[in-house]
Amino acid sequence: MSLIPESHRDLLERPLFGHLATIRAAGDGPQVNPMWFCWDGEYIRFTNTTIRYKYKNITADPHVAVSVNDPEQPYRYLEIRGEVVRIDDDSSAEFFAQLAERYGMKLDGPPPDAEHRIVYVVKPTAVSYQ
Amino acid sequence: MSLIPESHRDLLERPLFGHLATIRAAGDGPQVNPMWFCWDGEYIRFTNTTIRYKYKNITADPHVAVSVNDPEQPYRYLEIRGEVVRIDDDSSAEFFAQLAERYGMKLDGPPPDAEHRIVYVVKPTAVSYQ
Repeated sequence: MSLIPESHRDLLERPLFGHLATIRAAGDGPQVNPMWFCWDGEYIRFTNTTIRYKYKNITADPHVAVSVNDPEQPYRYLEIRGEVVRIDDDSSAEFFAQLAERYGMKLDGPPPDAEHRIVYVVKPTAVSYQ
Repeated sequence: MSLIPESHRDLLERPLFGHLATIRAAGDGPQVNPMWFCWDGEYIRFTNTTIRYKYKNITADPHVAVSVNDPEQPYRYLEIRGEVVRIDDDSSAEFFAQLAERYGMKLDGPPPDAEHRIVYVVKPTAVSYQ
């Protein structure tokens, strides 16, 4: 059975932004910013690169949390806490292109940072919602 | 001089939701969810209560981060990292009422949890934006 409540699944199915929180490797608190994501019913995936500070954070501590709210009813939200259980290579930028399509961004070829592209595969461990 | 870039101040001035990240007191990762806030040009303030788990997090580690994006241009965002430098009593629910007004919520009297209401006063220490 999925942890994600039926009532809030649309927040993962729609191309909304997920505010992804990590713990800074520098030990000086959390970091959070909006990210593209997708959900396959089991895992939540994010695109990033190995040259971003977030990569340092996640390789030092794989615990993350993501907050998504409904732009039409902003009090309606879903928070998922979880763990990055795998970091997949995406140097082909295939996953990046899938997300770009989901979010309606036109691409003319792979992004300039394709060689550093990776996928964070997050397994949800707890949810809260309203 | 304020840390907040002129170009992104509107994201703090408009009644948008701030996705507030804290580090869980349980030691099992970050926590993040959308919150009301206001900004006075120096501090960012949030309403909460002493009976929420977030209060445990912040009293154990005052480092926080907040992510706000523009509903009309979701790639436009502001992340503020900072510290809760003070926790003010709000058992009169006066600050809560100010925020309710800012966010267009009609109140008929103080909230039932008024006696536990507090204000997190956050001093920004770093920003990132796009």
